[in-house]
Amino acid sequence: MSEKIKKIGVLTSGGDAPGMNAAIRAVVRSCAFHKLDCVGIFRGYEGLMEADFKPLDARSVKNIINRGGTFLKSARSQKFRTADGRKLAYKNLKEANIDALVVIGGDGTFAGASVFNEEFDFPIVGLPGTIDNDINGTDYTIGYDTALNTVVEAIDKIRDTANSHNRLFLVEVMGRDAGDIALNAGIGAGAEEILIPEQDMGKDRLVESLRKSKLSGKTSSIIVVSEGDQIGKNIFELAEYIENNLTAYEVRVTVLGHIQRGGSPSCYDRVLASRLGVGAVDALINGESDVMIGIVHNKITSVLFKNTVKTKHKIDLELIRVADIISI
Amino acid sequence: MSEKIKKIGVLTSGGDAPGMNAAIRAVVRSCAFHKLDCVGIFRGYEGLMEADFKPLDARSVKNIINRGGTFLKSARSQKFRTADGRKLAYKNLKEANIDALVVIGGDGTFAGASVFNEEFDFPIVGLPGTIDNDINGTDYTIGYDTALNTVVEAIDKIRDTANSHNRLFLVEVMGRDAGDIALNAGIGAGAEEILIPEQDMGKDRLVESLRKSKLSGKTSSIIVVSEGDQIGKNIFELAEYIENNLTAYEVRVTVLGHIQRGGSPSCYDRVLASRLGVGAVDALINGESDVMIGIVHNKITSVLFKNTVKTKHKIDLELIRVADIISI
Amino acid sequence: MSEKIKKIGVLTSGGDAPGMNAAIRAVVRSCAFHKLDCVGIFRGYEGLMEADFKPLDARSVKNIINRGGTFLKSARSQKFRTADGRKLAYKNLKEANIDALVVIGGDGTFAGASVFNEEFDFPIVGLPGTIDNDINGTDYTIGYDTALNTVVEAIDKIRDTANSHNRLFLVEVMGRDAGDIALNAGIGAGAEEILIPEQDMGKDRLVESLRKSKLSGKTSSIIVVSEGDQIGKNIFELAEYIENNLTAYEVRVTVLGHIQRGGSPSCYDRVLASRLGVGAVDALINGESDVMIGIVHNKITSVLFKNTVKTKHKIDLELIRVADIISI
Amino acid sequence: MSEKIKKIGVLTSGGDAPGMNAAIRAVVRSCAFHKLDCVGIFRGYEGLMEADFKPLDARSVKNIINRGGTFLKSARSQKFRTADGRKLAYKNLKEANIDALVVIGGDGTFAGASVFNEEFDFPIVGLPGTIDNDINGTDYTIGYDTALNTVVEAIDKIRDTANSHNRLFLVEVMGRDAGDIALNAGIGAGAEEILIPEQDMGKDRLVESLRKSKLSGKTSSIIVVSEGDQIGKNIFELAEYIENNLTAYEVRVTVLGHIQRGGSPSCYDRVLASRLGVGAVDALINGESDVMIGIVHNKITSVLFKNTVKTKHKIDLELIRVADIISI
Repeated sequence: MSEKIKKIGVLTSGGDAPGMNAAIRAVVRSCAFHKLDCVGIFRGYEGLMEADFKPLDARSVKNIINRGGTFLKSARSQKFRTADGRKLAYKNLKEANIDALVVIGGDGTFAGASVFNEEFDFPIVGLPGTIDNDINGTDYTIGYDTALNTVVEAIDKIRDTANSHNRLFLVEVMGRDAGDIALNAGIGAGAEEILIPEQDMGKDRLVESLRKSKLSGKTSSIIVVSEGDQIGKNIFELAEYIENNLTAYEVRVTVLGHIQRGGSPSCYDRVLASRLGVGAVDALINGESDVMIGIVHNKITSVLFKNTVKTKHKIDLELIRVADIISI
Repeated sequence: MSEKIKKIGVLTSGGDAPGMNAAIRAVVRSCAFHKLDCVGIFRGYEGLMEADFKPLDARSVKNIINRGGTFLKSARSQKFRTADGRKLAYKNLKEANIDALVVIGGDGTFAGASVFNEEFDFPIVGLPGTIDNDINGTDYTIGYDTALNTVVEAIDKIRDTANSHNRLFLVEVMGRDAGDIALNAGIGAGAEEILIPEQDMGKDRLVESLRKSKLSGKTSSIIVVSEGDQIGKNIFELAEYIENNLTAYEVRVTVLGHIQRGGSPSCYDRVLASRLGVGAVDALINGESDVMIGIVHNKITSVLFKNTVKTKHKIDLELIRVADIISI
Repeated sequence: MSEKIKKIGVLTSGGDAPGMNAAIRAVVRSCAFHKLDCVGIFRGYEGLMEADFKPLDARSVKNIINRGGTFLKSARSQKFRTADGRKLAYKNLKEANIDALVVIGGDGTFAGASVFNEEFDFPIVGLPGTIDNDINGTDYTIGYDTALNTVVEAIDKIRDTANSHNRLFLVEVMGRDAGDIALNAGIGAGAEEILIPEQDMGKDRLVESLRKSKLSGKTSSIIVVSEGDQIGKNIFELAEYIENNLTAYEVRVTVLGHIQRGGSPSCYDRVLASRLGVGAVDALINGESDVMIGIVHNKITSVLFKNTVKTKHKIDLELIRVADIISI
Repeated sequence: MSEKIKKIGVLTSGGDAPGMNAAIRAVVRSCAFHKLDCVGIFRGYEGLMEADFKPLDARSVKNIINRGGTFLKSARSQKFRTADGRKLAYKNLKEANIDALVVIGGDGTFAGASVFNEEFDFPIVGLPGTIDNDINGTDYTIGYDTALNTVVEAIDKIRDTANSHNRLFLVEVMGRDAGDIALNAGIGAGAEEILIPEQDMGKDRLVESLRKSKLSGKTSSIIVVSEGDQIGKNIFELAEYIENNLTAYEVRVTVLGHIQRGGSPSCYDRVLASRLGVGAVDALINGESDVMIGIVHNKITSVLFKNTVKTKHKIDLELIRVADIISI
C-alpha cells in the first residue's frame, strides 16, 4: 500500500495549540524530503469537505516554527460526523489525488479520523495537538509544555500582587477533565493548593488546610483550580465560600482563559512537533494507518486511534505527594 | 526646613504596580547618597499607624529593581482617613525621628498625604505608582508602561487562537475610569475596536462597525474593552448581544485581570521610577512638600497634591484617530 | 502638489528595527483609509532600483504588528549613492505611477532620501526606524524602546549568574556613537557602572570606582559598555585590565549582539510606529516633503531631513546623575 | 543509618543553573515535612570548609521558585580537592551536627562528593544541576529545559534580522562537550545546520550544504554551533571561511554567552527540581548515599556517583535525522 502514496494532505482540527505550525512544517518538509507532494487543508474537516486545499512546498512553511496557532486554521465540524459529510470529503480527496492524510488535533479529531479510515480504507495518521495532555498513548501532547509555561508566567505576575497585598488568589486554568495542567503548573508556580478533577478535596478540607498554613506564617496564597474540578467548577462561588469561612484573607479570582492556548511554542513543543511530524510521514510511507503517532519514554511510537481515548484519567500520586510536601 | 531632614520614611500604598520596588530602591539609595537615614514603612498607612518600620541601607535594596510588586507591601487604609489614625501616625513618626515621608501610590494615597501634611505640617512628597495612568501632573505613572506590554503580550497570544478559529474576542483590560491602557494597548495589539470610558460608542454602532469590517475581509477580530466603559461594563452581556446581532463570528470573552498589575517592570518603568525616586529626595532636601513628583515632557516636575486628581479625563483625539485608521 | 498623490510607495532601509512592520502597516492602512494606492518596495533602495514592487492593500498587512524585523526586507545600498542609481529609481517610480515615498530607516536612509528629493522634486518623507535613538528631531526612534527591554531582560539573566558567583560582568550593548541604550538600559538593569561614548571615564577611574563599591559591600557587579565607548571599544582588553588591577572579582564578558535588533516590538514602539505611519501619509497629503516625521513631547512633528543628522550627541546630565546615585 | 539523620545540609556547586533555587526550596520544605532540620551552606564546598552556614525553615525559601541562579551562591573549589580541605569540611559538619548532605551541581560536584563520602562514610546525595544535560543516569538535568527556551527565544530575535537582511548567522551556544543544547535548540529554532561535538561535519561539507540550500530558495540561514564543536571552536574563523567560500551571504556571528545560564526557570525545570529535591530527602531518610537522584522515563531514580560521569556522549540519531529532514 505504501508505494501508492504520492500526495499527502495535512490539516489541524479542534482547539488550536502552540506547536501545530511546527508540526505542519515538519510534515511538509518531510514530504519534500521523501519527494512526495503535500497539500494543506484549511479549517480541519470543514475545509476537507469544501475542498479548501493549497499545495505546500518546503519554502511555504518558512518562519512559522515559532508561531502559535495554526496557519491552516482549525474548526470543529458537525457535518463530518455524518456519512454524507465524510463521503464528500472522500470525493474531494480522490479528485485532488491525495493518497493519505495527517490530522493534527485531539480525541474528537481522532474519532472522526478512525471512522473515516474504516469507511473508505483511506490511509490516515494523527498527531496529538492539544494543550490539555489528555490523550492516551503519548506522554506529551503538542502545546502542553507551552501552556504550562504560560500559566506559570501568569501566576508569577499574580503572585507579585498577592504578596504585596497579603491576598489569596484563586486562579482557574484549562485542562478539561484532566488535571495535568493544574497539577504541574501548580507545583511550578508554588501554589498553596491545587484543585484537580481526579481528586475531590471538599470545600471544608480546603478551608481547613488554608487556615493551618496561615497559622504557619504564610501571608499570601495562590490556589490553582482546574476548570474541570468539582468544587472549583464555579470558582466565584468558591471564592465567596472561602471569604466567608476564612476571614484571614481577601480573596480574588483570575480566570486565565484563552491566553493559555496561544503564544510562541516552547523549545520542547517545537522539537516534539518536529519529531512527530517526521514520524507521521514515516508511518504513512511504512503503510501504517488508523494510528496516532505519539511519544512514550522519549521514543516515537504509534497507537491505534481507538486506544487514544482516555477511559479515566489516572492521578500521578508522586506529583500529588510532591505538591503536598513543597507547599508546607 | 530642609536642614532639619535627617531621616526619611518611604511607603507604598493602594494597588501595587510594577516599578514600585525600583522607586523604593531609588529613594533608599538617594538617601544613602545624601547621607540621610532611610526607613521602610510596611503596608502603607496601616504600617505607619502600627509603627511597622525597618531601617533600609543601600545594600538592603539590591536585586529588587527587576521585581514586580512592592517588597514594602501595600494596603488600603480606612483608619488613616480618621483624625485619630493620622494622629497615631504622626506620633509614630516623631518617636522614630522620621522627618519626612515619600509615599508611592495613586490619587487616594495623595489625598491622605495632603490632609496629613496640612494637619501636622509634615514634609511629604508623593510618587505616582499605578498602572492606570490616571493622575494629573505627570505624563506617565510608574507601572503603566509595563501593564501596556503585559496586555499586548496577552492579546498576541489570544490572537493566535482568534486567527486559527475565525473568532471574535472581547478582552477586558484595567484602567478604572481612564481609557489609557485600553486605547494604547488596543492600538498596540491591533484591535479592531477599542471601548473606553471617555467615549460612548453604543452597542449598535459597534455591531454595525464589526459587520462592515467582516465584509471588508477580516476573518477574526479583537475588541479591547476598558473595565470602566459604559457598554463594556458587563462584558459577558455585551458578548451575548454581539453574538445575537452579528452571526458572522463565534464570540469569546477574556478578562485579563490581575496579571496586569504584576510582572518584571519594563526598562521605561525602571528608569522612570529611578528618576522619580531621586527627584523625591531632592525635593524634600529642597524644602518642597505637599507635592507629587512627576514627569512632564521628559523633565522631572512637581505638582501640588490637590492638582493631581483628574477632574475629567481628556480623550487623546489623535490616538483615537490613529486607532480608527489602522484598524481599517 | 498634494492633489497629485494617488499612489504611495513604502520601503525600509538600513539596519532593521522592531516596529518597522507596525510602521509599514500604518502607512498601508492609512493609504487605504484615504483611498490611495500603496506599493511595498522590497530591500530598501536596492529594490527601488530593481523595481521589486508589490501592491499592498489593508488586508495584506494583517498579523504583522507584533513581528520584529521588516517583511519588506532591508538593505544598505551603494548604488543609490550614485546619480545613475537614483535615475534608475526615479524611472521605476514613474513607470509604476508611484507619486510619493515613505522611507523608514536611519540617518543614512534620510541622507539618500534628501538627495533624491532634491534631484527629482519627488515627494518623500521619512520615519525614524533604528534601535540606536541617534536621530535629531524626534525624542524616540522606532525600535529603541524594544531594544531597551531586550537588553534589560538579558542583563537580568546575566545578573542571576553574577550574583550566584560573585562575579563582575562586562556587557556590551549597541548604540553606535550614541550612549542612549547603554545609559537607559544600564539604569534599568541596575548596573554598577555605565560606559558611554559621550563621556570618557578612563580605565583607572573605573577600577577605582569598582574597588570602592566592593569595599562598600557589593558582591557582584554589572558594567554596561556602549559599543562606541572609548575604553570599552575593546571589551576583552578592558576585562583583562580590570582583572589585573582589581583582584576582587572574576571578570566575564558578554557581547549581546544582534538579539538587540529583533524581537516582538513593545507596546510603546507599536503605538509610536502606528502614529508615525499615519503621520507620514498625512504629511504627504498635506504637501510636505524632504522631512522626517518624528515625535517631540508626545506630539507628531516634522523636521527637515538635513536637520535629523546629529552633529554631536548631547549627554543627558540628569540621567547620568541618577545613574551615579542609584548605583551607590 | 537513616534513623540518625536529624539535620541535613544543602549546597549548590559549580556553574549555576535555573531551577537550583526550586531544588533548594524542595529540600528545605521536604525537611520541614519530615520534621528534620535543614541548613543552607553558602558558596558550595568553599562555604562548607568555612562553616558558612544558615538554618533554613519552610518560610525562608518562599518566593524563590521563580528565580534564576542560586540564593546559596555557588563556587568551584580547589581546596576541596585536597585531603586537608575535606577534613576541614567534615569537622565543620560534625560541629554543626549536620548528619547528611544534598549537593546540587554537575559532574565535578559529584566527583568531590563521592570522595568525601568514601573518606568519611558521610551520607551524601546529589542532584543534577547544570544547563548542559551532560550527566549520565538522568534524562534531564535541572536548568537544561530553561536554557533551551532561552536559546530559542534569542535565535527567534536574531532570525528577525537575518530574514530582513538575507543574512547567514552563526550562533554559538553552550553545552561543553555535549551537543544536546545545540541539537535541540537548533531544531526548535529552525536552524539550517547544527554543529555538535559528537559529529564532525567538516568545513567543506558545511559550505557545500549551505550552497545547495541557497540554490533551493533559502534567503537567510541560522547555523547553531555548539561551543565544543571541532570546526565551530573558533567561530569567528569559521565565519570568515564561509564568507570567503560562499559569497551568497553576509555572515554574522553571535555568541549567546551567559544569558543561557540565567532567567526564571521553565515550568518543567521547576517541577523537575521539586521532584528531585523531595527525592533527595527521601533517599537520605531511606539510607541511600553516594548516589545522584535523577529522572529516567519520568520516574525518580538513583544512580551511583561514579556512574554519572559520561564516558562518551552518545549521538541521538533520530534527532539528527529530524534536523536534516526539517531543514530541507
